[in-house]
Amino acid sequence: MTRDPSQVSIMAKKFPQVQPGGSLILAWQIKGKKVLVVGGGEVAAGRILNCLNADAAVTVVAPSTGLNDEVRHRIAEKQVTHVDRVFEPSDLDGAEMVLVAVDDPAASTAIWKLCKEKKIPANIADVPPECDFYFGSVHRDGPLQIMVSTNGKGPRIAALIRKFIAKSLPENAGNAIETIGELRVKLRKIAPTSEDSPKRMTWMSKVSDTYNWQEMCELTEEDMDNLLLFYPANKVPDFDILRALRGEKNTDVSKLDVFDGSFGFSVGA
Amino acid sequence: MTRDPSQVSIMAKKFPQVQPGGSLILAWQIKGKKVLVVGGGEVAAGRILNCLNADAAVTVVAPSTGLNDEVRHRIAEKQVTHVDRVFEPSDLDGAEMVLVAVDDPAASTAIWKLCKEKKIPANIADVPPECDFYFGSVHRDGPLQIMVSTNGKGPRIAALIRKFIAKSLPENAGNAIETIGELRVKLRKIAPTSEDSPKRMTWMSKVSDTYNWQEMCELTEEDMDNLLLFYPANKVPDFDILRALRGEKNTDVSKLDVFDGSFGFSVGA
Repeated sequence: MTRDPSQVSIMAKKFPQVQPGGSLILAWQIKGKKVLVVGGGEVAAGRILNCLNADAAVTVVAPSTGLNDEVRHRIAEKQVTHVDRVFEPSDLDGAEMVLVAVDDPAASTAIWKLCKEKKIPANIADVPPECDFYFGSVHRDGPLQIMVSTNGKGPRIAALIRKFIAKSLPENAGNAIETIGELRVKLRKIAPTSEDSPKRMTWMSKVSDTYNWQEMCELTEEDMDNLLLFYPANKVPDFDILRALRGEKNTDVSKLDVFDGSFGFSVGA
Repeated sequence: MTRDPSQVSIMAKKFPQVQPGGSLILAWQIKGKKVLVVGGGEVAAGRILNCLNADAAVTVVAPSTGLNDEVRHRIAEKQVTHVDRVFEPSDLDGAEMVLVAVDDPAASTAIWKLCKEKKIPANIADVPPECDFYFGSVHRDGPLQIMVSTNGKGPRIAALIRKFIAKSLPENAGNAIETIGELRVKLRKIAPTSEDSPKRMTWMSKVSDTYNWQEMCELTEEDMDNLLLFYPANKVPDFDILRALRGEKNTDVSKLDVFDGSFGFSVGA
């Protein structure tokens, strides 16, 4: 293909530059799947919690003599299946992910090789070349997960940044995501048919485009009900209007002054 | 195992509660590995950039007639390998990950099934049950990657939150991670032997514990050199002291008033 060089440089400016050296950050779906954790120390305890938070079926292989208190607690509470001995190759049967955290480099490497033969994604703690993936520092608030990775350059800094972000987020951050989900459900009750679907989607996009993140976190049940009054007219009021409407009963939106345009509606896409 | 119920409730308080319903967020290592992207539209363009940012060897299978401008640009710049036709099963040979973004549910499902047979991790865009993993909205700043996932509850909100975080972060966030890495390298020059290793590690931890994230982002080359003067005494000065030392030449740390303790050193672990 022949190309005009001047055109190439215009294109290069138009599209995002590649920034090499990162990882591919993924939200792995492990619900109900068998994750094998080999080891029962502090690192294993962290891995187990990560997996349980993602609804995995966790099996821990480790002699009960060396268990960390948290791991012991997860076993006692039947949150995980415990195999009370050292690793055996048959432990890999049915496993969809393997996390190794034992102080035995030779055993670790042997497990890594088995996983590669069986094509099971694996992470050998503290041995980067024997990892299909790394973990990061994760902030969790309901459906919201924020993961900080320094790409191996500083796990302690990742934790610092995670704490910084957790402090910066609006108080209702996790809840706001549920709220928007709820708004979608309420909308579907008002406009249930599949013919309504394009208008529903356009209106929901308009909502996301009109309010900033802090405003979304502030949305109350009452705000949502008031907001939905504007759906038939395919409008989304400024947040100030929702605030002004608080406490008003049986608002008749068609009689509101807001429709004279003076409130600056977000109309159109 | 019999347990005293009162003891169980104490233990339950001691350890983090499981918060089900999340994903397992991972930093996948795909450097130099073959990722197959099926499709050449807008979604494919986003996937390709994600993979290139993680140094993957990307192959795009899509007829050149339907290519998005960004995908066309990546091909023209030889950032990806292009196979100019629709998907064929042999495309999976050697692939370590498969990302499908085509408007053809039947073809997508067929590719998903092949991937499962071959145990290749795969993501079929817009078909959650045919995904080993989801993508999120990623902020990137050098070695720092922050990924926001709403666990499928609102990709637009994820992008809003990502923008909010990007705005909240100190300006030098990515750079600060490099700085700490640099500090570690400089320290190793001062204290190179393996006998120095425990002291080096303790001191570096002390550095992370003494400064908050904003202070770390503010650390200059000069600050680092001054900071290293405190290493022989195994001390880490408050950040105010580093600020005060700026512009001083040939600081003799042993003659500084700071050692009378009045500056509030971080001593001990």
